[in-house]
Parts: sequence; C-alpha cells; structure tokens
Amino acid sequence: MLLDELEHPIVLAPLAGGPSTPGLAAAVSGAGGLGFLAGAYRPVDALRDDIAAVRARTPAPFGVNLFVLRSSAVDEDALVSYVERLRPEAIRYGVELGEPRFDDDGWEAKVALLHDERVPVVSFTFACPSREELAALKGVGSEVWVTITDPAEARAARDAGADALVLQGVEAGGHRGSWSDDDRDGLGVLALLRLVAAEVELPLVAAGGVADGAAVAAVLAAGAAAAQLGTAFLRAPEAGTSSAHREALATDTPTALTRAFTGRTARGLVNRFLVDHSSDAPAAFPHVHHVTAPVRTAARRAGDADGYNLWAGQAHSLARELPAAEIVETLARDARSALAKAASRQR
Amino acid sequence: MLLDELEHPIVLAPLAGGPSTPGLAAAVSGAGGLGFLAGAYRPVDALRDDIAAVRARTPAPFGVNLFVLRSSAVDEDALVSYVERLRPEAIRYGVELGEPRFDDDGWEAKVALLHDERVPVVSFTFACPSREELAALKGVGSEVWVTITDPAEARAARDAGADALVLQGVEAGGHRGSWSDDDRDGLGVLALLRLVAAEVELPLVAAGGVADGAAVAAVLAAGAAAAQLGTAFLRAPEAGTSSAHREALATDTPTALTRAFTGRTARGLVNRFLVDHSSDAPAAFPHVHHVTAPVRTAARRAGDADGYNLWAGQAHSLARELPAAEIVETLARDARSALAKAASRQR
Repeated sequence: MLLDELEHPIVLAPLAGGPSTPGLAAAVSGAGGLGFLAGAYRPVDALRDDIAAVRARTPAPFGVNLFVLRSSAVDEDALVSYVERLRPEAIRYGVELGEPRFDDDGWEAKVALLHDERVPVVSFTFACPSREELAALKGVGSEVWVTITDPAEARAARDAGADALVLQGVEAGGHRGSWSDDDRDGLGVLALLRLVAAEVELPLVAAGGVADGAAVAAVLAAGAAAAQLGTAFLRAPEAGTSSAHREALATDTPTALTRAFTGRTARGLVNRFLVDHSSDAPAAFPHVHHVTAPVRTAARRAGDADGYNLWAGQAHSLARELPAAEIVETLARDARSALAKAASRQR
Repeated sequence: MLLDELEHPIVLAPLAGGPSTPGLAAAVSGAGGLGFLAGAYRPVDALRDDIAAVRARTPAPFGVNLFVLRSSAVDEDALVSYVERLRPEAIRYGVELGEPRFDDDGWEAKVALLHDERVPVVSFTFACPSREELAALKGVGSEVWVTITDPAEARAARDAGADALVLQGVEAGGHRGSWSDDDRDGLGVLALLRLVAAEVELPLVAAGGVADGAAVAAVLAAGAAAAQLGTAFLRAPEAGTSSAHREALATDTPTALTRAFTGRTARGLVNRFLVDHSSDAPAAFPHVHHVTAPVRTAARRAGDADGYNLWAGQAHSLARELPAAEIVETLARDARSALAKAASRQR
C-alpha cells in the first residue's frame, strides 16, 4: 500500500472545480504527502495534460479522483421551478442560465485514460464502480480508493474490491460523497472512523474538518492511516482558488450544507446565493450544476463572493496562506508533536 | 484544576431524563474518571438526595449539571398547532397531554443547594450564568464548567469566568447545548475543538460521538484535557436507561436531530415519533417537553421504543454492556494504547 510508504500521512483532497492544479498536487506529493488531481469537470484531454504536468514536476506518487455519476430520476417539476427562480441571478450577472441536463462527466473516456496512464492511485466519489471496473484499474497497477460516508457504503466498497476507503465526515467542504443525496443526518468524521473501523479492515483515510496538525493527529489516533485535507490547502499559492474565495476562507463566516449551486449537497461558506436558494434547490446533479455554471463563472470573474460556491470545511479559518510544501511539513510536524504530547500524558 | 488530578481523562455526561443515577456517577468517579449527576428535571430535594447518595458511595470528586433556561418568546401559533398534532399520540397511549409552559427548572433553589453542597464541579448547559453567579459558586470551592457548541459561545463563557469548557460536537446524543436553538449547522467535535483551542486557553472537555478508547485518544491528541461520554455509559447496569432504549442502542439504527420530543434540538435514534413529528415541532422548550411528558412516560412503561425519546450519539452502536467502572478502565486503556501506537508510527 502506498499509504505505508508515504513520508507524511497527509493526502490532498481532489478539489474539483477550480482549486485543483498540477502544481498543487505535485507540491504535496513532492513534500512527502500524496497529491491528488481532480478528474471531475475536466475534459479528458485537459486531464491527460494535468497528469503529464504532475509527472514533469515530481517523480513522487499521486492520485486522480473521478466522480461516479449514474443517471437517476430527478423531480422534473422541482427542477423547472428552480430554474425559474434562478432567472434573476442570470440577469444580475448578465448571463444566460445553462441547460439542465445529465451527463456522466466523460466516465468511459476518463477510465480509458487512466488505464493508459497507470497513475498510482485512482479514487472515486458519489458511488463505487463495479468490481470489474475496479479490478481492471488494479490490473494496470493503480490502487483504487472509494469515498464513503457511512458504514453501509464502507462495506459495499470493501466487497467491490477497494484497496482503501476515504471516509468523508459531514464537516468536509465541497460535495458530500454520499452515494445517495438524501437528507439523512451526516456522520462526523470521528464517529464515522470508529464505526467503520469496527467493521472493515481496509486502510482508512479520514477527511472532514481536518485543517491543522493536531486534527491530523486526532484521526491517526482514531485509527486512520492518513488524513485527507482540502480546505487546508485552498490558500496555498499553487491552488487555483479564486481570490474572493481565498479572502472569505480567512474569516469566521459559518458554513452550511446546500444544494443551491449544483443540485447536490455540498458544504460552503454561507453567502447571499446560498441563503437565497438553499430551501428551493432540488436534488438534481449535475443538472443544476450546468444551470448555474454561467452565473457562478460571472460572479467569480467579478470578484463577487456572494454569487458563487465558496466550498469550505467547518475548520476553514485554520487554513494558512503558505506554499503547499510548507503546509504539508507543518501539518506533519504538528501532528507528531500533538501525538507525542498526548501519549506522554497518558503513560 | 480537577482535570489535572483525574486518574483517567474520562468524564461522564450528565444524562438528564432517566439514565443519570447516583450509582452511575459514583461508579465512574470511583474508577478514576469524573462522574456527573443531572440536576435537570430533578426536584431540588431529589437532587440533594442524589448528591448525598454519590458521597455515600465514594469519596472521589464528581460534578452536577444544571440547565440554564431563560424565558424567551416562542411562536405561540406554532406551539398550539403542534399540540393539536400530538393529540393522536395521547389517545394512542391512553394519556392526557401535558400543559405547554415555561419554567426555569428550579434554578434559584438548585443554585442555592449547590452553594450549600459545595460539589467539586458544577456544569451548565444551554447558556452561561452571569459572572456573579459563576463567581459565587467558585467562592464556595466549586469549579464551574460551561457547555459550548461554537467559538463565540466559548469566548463568552471564558469572559464570564468559566474554569473549563465542555465542547459539545453535533455528533452528541441528547439536547444540543447551543445557547440559541436555531437551525445553524452544528460543528463536529474535532473541528469545534481545534477552532476553540485556537482562541481560548481554558481546559477543554470534548463531547460528541466519542464512544470508545480510540475516540478518546483522538480528542486528547487534538488538545482536549478529557473526553466526556454519555451514550457510551447508557448500557451500563448502573444507568437508569429504559430497557427498550438499551436494546435500540445496540442496533445500527441511525440518529437524527429533532425538536419533536421537547421543543429543543436533540439527537436521538430515529423512531416513529421522531419521523412523524420532526417537521412540525417548534422551538419551544421546555413547553413541548411538558406537553409530551405523559406520552413519553406511557410509551416507556409500555416498552414501546417508537413512542419516546431514545437519545443517542452518532457512535451509539459502539456502546458496551459493561459495569461503568469497567467501561472507564477499558476506555482509558484503549486510549493509551491508541496514542502509543499512533505516536510510535509518526516518530
């Protein structure tokens, strides 16, 4: 397992939708953590280039994350009505709304690319690929990791052949990785870790509200093989985070779960768009993502932090503005010292 | 600080409403943890007897928790309409609904009792007493701990003179200790711990979804002085937990936040009553508590787990049926070994 060979038990979250860059992934891997590229939302040719760009920067291992999207029935009336409610946003930002539609984010082409590229780790979010799909990637030498949010998903991913599980607590920024986007109460990362560890023997990577070294120490003490952090890297210069998003992260603005931006539950900083639209937004992903994309792009370009998704985990105000390699080293050093201190007290 | 002198960094949660008993508090304190008595819902004379009963069983220190209830405007229309919706429950269990009313749970009499009794720790939930009230209890030799759920409450409790803070993550069973019962997103215990530790220098006691030794290790690694556990003790023979509640805890039934039972957000196992009434229940505590009390009592007596509140934290399925002293010792031993293991890996 790659997790056993990492210098530091620090994994970068994929950070789809802007913040992910080859420079960020390479910096984390080069510093002894495990960098990740977001395959989601990227055209397959761009993803090929991203992989080449990481390899050009570092010989260290890294991972690529894909969304696993399956077409399922959406409430068409609720979707149409939500699109109508969004029209004033389009007017506000001087754009046309996008078309609500399902697509699978180029699944077949991206899986074919990953077969060719043989990257060290491929991780999956929103569902588990089939046993055959996982086996094919393992066959070309990739480790396959599956994101889960409860013990039932953990058992299913294990049974499908996952090499490791990414446990995403409800504290995490960005999309919830739950396999069905219902309104069930989300498990906190610590409870999730202990519940899954009681049932599943795979290596566990813990994500959600982990933003400093002491929190990394906590999930390691609770049995994780590594921590996965996203928000903690959003202010690194290597990240593609927009400037209004960077500024908002450094405040103590609260976060909330919302489907307003994409039609799928995700955690972001509370802003005007989130407050105005959360109660009306249906579960319809990626339909709503496509509808709001022009609005979000325009707001982002205008530097209007109230008009687009500012994904952030609950501990975002602990994220530091430092080069990614320094973040990795600081996290690892602080985690070691937190563990040593706690262990010596309990002797 | 008492926390520095405990043999084990394990604090019993107060467990108001049935599970709290002098035998449970004394067993936890006698085993080297810190037992707690629930002062809430108890007549002052019964609380006096409880304190005497703990002292008769052990010379070890223990704490008493009080609710801090302040009369605030409730939505009377919503309350009346909710009472109407509950009438079929009263018929189902052959009782009359209680009267919706505010009371402060006997605040003055209980504070006067605690001045007399000089118990080692007094903790508070739902708000922070005034600086003068805290100072008076400190003056008779009690430590005062205040329950908080976000950094703003933590700062306010520190400024009022709290000796320590109980940090309650959203994973916790029973009532949320938030000072205002709004619908804000709740912080997970790990994020809460790191956010508060970054701002407040008081000793921190971490609660919420902590149900085994590795989770205790996690919060210690994250900087807590101790963990507070409630659900983990609900299956101990010393606890006053009802038998249908005990059985339900040992299943993997999910939990949810609800105001259905008491008019205040609390986490319990999902059951019929919770599913049927959560969406209608207003924020009106303790009004709704008094209304549903006869129904809950009747359902509990009938052994009907679908008719009353089965408070439980998210990791409830890890709770073990063991004498409380064995639970304390197991938690402490497992926490030590989890910390030693994690520390030796990160050396």
